[in-house]
Amino acid sequence: MSENGVSPRAKVLTIDNMNPTVKKVEYAVRGPIVQRALELERELSEGMKKPFVEVIKANIGDAHAMGQQPITFFRQVLALCSYPELLNDSSFPEDAKSRARRILQSCGGNSMGSYSASQGIESVRQDVARYIERRDGGVPCDPDNIFLTTGASDGIVTMLKLLVCGEGETRTGVMISIPQYPLYSAALAELAAVQVNYYLNEEKCWSMDLSELQRSLDEARRHCNPRALCVINPGNPTGQVQSRQCIEDVIRFAAKERLFLMADEVYQDNVYAEGCEFHSFKKVLFNMGPEYSDIVELASFHSTSKCYMGECGFRGGYMEIINLDEEVRAQLTKLVSVRLCPPVPGQALMDLVVNPPQIGEPSYDKFIKERSATLSVLAEKAKLTEQVLNTVKGISCNPVQGAMYSFPSISIPEKAIKEATDKGQQADMFYCMKLLEETGICLVPGSGFGQRDGTYHFRMTILPSTDKLKILLNKVKEFHQKFTEEYS
Amino acid sequence: MSENGVSPRAKVLTIDNMNPTVKKVEYAVRGPIVQRALELERELSEGMKKPFVEVIKANIGDAHAMGQQPITFFRQVLALCSYPELLNDSSFPEDAKSRARRILQSCGGNSMGSYSASQGIESVRQDVARYIERRDGGVPCDPDNIFLTTGASDGIVTMLKLLVCGEGETRTGVMISIPQYPLYSAALAELAAVQVNYYLNEEKCWSMDLSELQRSLDEARRHCNPRALCVINPGNPTGQVQSRQCIEDVIRFAAKERLFLMADEVYQDNVYAEGCEFHSFKKVLFNMGPEYSDIVELASFHSTSKCYMGECGFRGGYMEIINLDEEVRAQLTKLVSVRLCPPVPGQALMDLVVNPPQIGEPSYDKFIKERSATLSVLAEKAKLTEQVLNTVKGISCNPVQGAMYSFPSISIPEKAIKEATDKGQQADMFYCMKLLEETGICLVPGSGFGQRDGTYHFRMTILPSTDKLKILLNKVKEFHQKFTEEYS
Ligand SMILES: Cc1ncc(COP(=O)(O)O)c(C=O)c1O
Ligand SMILES: Cc1ncc(COP(=O)(O)O)c(C=O)c1O
Repeated sequence: MSENGVSPRAKVLTIDNMNPTVKKVEYAVRGPIVQRALELERELSEGMKKPFVEVIKANIGDAHAMGQQPITFFRQVLALCSYPELLNDSSFPEDAKSRARRILQSCGGNSMGSYSASQGIESVRQDVARYIERRDGGVPCDPDNIFLTTGASDGIVTMLKLLVCGEGETRTGVMISIPQYPLYSAALAELAAVQVNYYLNEEKCWSMDLSELQRSLDEARRHCNPRALCVINPGNPTGQVQSRQCIEDVIRFAAKERLFLMADEVYQDNVYAEGCEFHSFKKVLFNMGPEYSDIVELASFHSTSKCYMGECGFRGGYMEIINLDEEVRAQLTKLVSVRLCPPVPGQALMDLVVNPPQIGEPSYDKFIKERSATLSVLAEKAKLTEQVLNTVKGISCNPVQGAMYSFPSISIPEKAIKEATDKGQQADMFYCMKLLEETGICLVPGSGFGQRDGTYHFRMTILPSTDKLKILLNKVKEFHQKFTEEYS
Repeated sequence: MSENGVSPRAKVLTIDNMNPTVKKVEYAVRGPIVQRALELERELSEGMKKPFVEVIKANIGDAHAMGQQPITFFRQVLALCSYPELLNDSSFPEDAKSRARRILQSCGGNSMGSYSASQGIESVRQDVARYIERRDGGVPCDPDNIFLTTGASDGIVTMLKLLVCGEGETRTGVMISIPQYPLYSAALAELAAVQVNYYLNEEKCWSMDLSELQRSLDEARRHCNPRALCVINPGNPTGQVQSRQCIEDVIRFAAKERLFLMADEVYQDNVYAEGCEFHSFKKVLFNMGPEYSDIVELASFHSTSKCYMGECGFRGGYMEIINLDEEVRAQLTKLVSVRLCPPVPGQALMDLVVNPPQIGEPSYDKFIKERSATLSVLAEKAKLTEQVLNTVKGISCNPVQGAMYSFPSISIPEKAIKEATDKGQQADMFYCMKLLEETGICLVPGSGFGQRDGTYHFRMTILPSTDKLKILLNKVKEFHQKFTEEYS
């Protein structure tokens, strides 16, 4: 039947002739451990006997899934925007109604069902700009520099996409922290950009180290063209909060080395540790004066998914671009227009995050109460996690200063490493898989985020309820002791 | 200050060193005409005098923005899902509540604020599968073959991404109709795939022509590796509905030539002309028997943005994949997991579209009434558009059988073509820009979609209200007559 001798039943699209850059993508947060966790849940629900009664997932920063409650005001406004008939319902507070009216007035045909401008709804961008000005102590922000996005993920990938060019030794390199949030490595693989690793300093609470940045950059320059430096602050998976001094140093480094800065600040409200404070790259940059603020190119990212709201499913986010070349900006505008627009409910939610109830408005007290409750429980759990893990011999854990994760180092006995290697597994994957099978606890192995050779870690979120978190931590403790004995 | 002699103020990222494939992207639907239309609106609102009192936008398939009303039931359920307190509100119908409960039960922590599975919420995928089975007269559909997406755009780009490989003469080519929806050319440019044009037959109401497909393929094979064939049915920008026979022919062609089929069926409910009917590629494929249905690889796409619901802002959609290689499927699953998940409100909406109120449920009558009203007004406007445009000497318009667009050919006098060329403009861009400046009507030039050399068109949506559409059509008529005189 076929003229060229190929069997007509062979697929057109196969693993061998598909996009090779897609094949190179790795993504651990939803990898084999999570697949197995879902299977175990199914097996449990079908009545299969396991050494545990439930699967506890601490693998992903998905707050509502772990029981965190949404902010009432936000959801009221979203309901009003979805079904504007409710504007006549007297049980909704007036401030929620006026927010909803303002959002709807900015939508074509007063409907969230219209495409918005591709850069995002103008009034939302204005509110974002005012929020940034307040956050940064008055440093001005131009709404034209704000692009609303489909979660922070979208903005990050879009900016990386703009940056990539060249071939071979001139191919764009992008510096990312190790450990990293695997969106970065995945996006770079897909774009066939060169991933340039710089290691965070575990001994100094995962801080950034100038000499390590320099080493990484100098080495990369031998084989690619490093053009951008990504920073996640507060950190995922490492939970650190960078000091103002460190951010200044990084900005100076970027200016000196001519690197485009990308600041992933999705955890900007998640700061727990005493003495720690969130400083945005934008603020620090502008406080360093025009010598820096006139030249350093910066894109920073925020999201509705984290902080106290944890609204991941709405896929809201924004990026702010500073000092972007005007012609490149025009290209960015064109690029985002191909996908039409970010989801409008996510844009509406972003608007509420940057423009929450104000003192004197009817919803203010409740909003503050809900927000504080969520953040203080997170702070409590951050502390608890650090404390309990550090009581375990063979586990060593930096303070969880911010974000939603602990990334302790774990010592794995040689015998276990060997068994893992024989199975073709990373030792920490082997460890986490065993932990899951024996205890029902789902964590992500450190190898999914990157770590110094010969060290092992896992990432756990602090999102389970305090009760479950206690169970989880104790089970991890027991497991680690048993595991260590078994393989010693 | 700089060691290498480059001025320290030169940007890191410039138009000369940015991603070259992004630069190649073109996107007309939101291009210069639309920019100018927005400016004109601003100028009007600031009191500037214009030869018109309002800008009428017929450039984009954005139904709600043009006044189409959302389906009440859909918005009720979305409000309930956003703010579940409303489940206690007796003014909401019971069927809306039970839908909302079902959706929420499928969300982590019963909240739309949780990330869903990356492939989409399982119960929604099940509902999609059942919808497809009903739509296709019982042809089976496996929920595992359904991937929920961020609008159809996302699914289309994702599938194209998988398909691209090779360099130079072995680079993947993708066949797209001309005229096309510019997402396709934009995505192919960005992926550096080869765009392989096949022309629709304007004389035969924009149908697909087998000999033209063959010509296009044979020519492309000389310089690239054509691997996929994209079809938009009902058509954008051309408004045709392909016959069942034509679809069969195309499937046979794809099977014979070993092409991966992509069927963009976002307008599947938008069929107006007598004797026309929507046939999904999936159904036709399976009706052709296992000789075809066992081998032809097909991805088809749907969206919440079009049809009778027109919910563009929610960015809901799905794709169904048929006969995809298992290893490639695993790669697809990995790829979509990097972006975490499609927006959950969009998934919820997609669920409602595929599982609307049923006979006997309290919301059924109202739903049917609203849906029929919207579709019959669209049908009326489709007819009106064709009729009026065909009264204009120099404009020739195929019947608007489906979708939401008319794509008439317009004759442009030589003198106007010359003036446009002197300005470095396409003649139909020149025409549409002039139309906009003189009448406030915003259309998109045919050159933004592609057309046979030497022919000119514009695309207009049929979405303005009947009253406005009449004004618009009459203004276009007057303008065309004046323009033709002026340049003759
Ligand atoms: C550091 C970091 N950046 C970006 C994201 C992406 O979040 P989203 O796309 O939901 O906004 C995440 C999500 O966990 C994250 O941890
Ligand atoms: C043919 C076609 N495909 C896909 C899309 C994308 O729609 P969305 O991403 O809003 O689902 C459109 C939008 O106009 C379209 O006309």
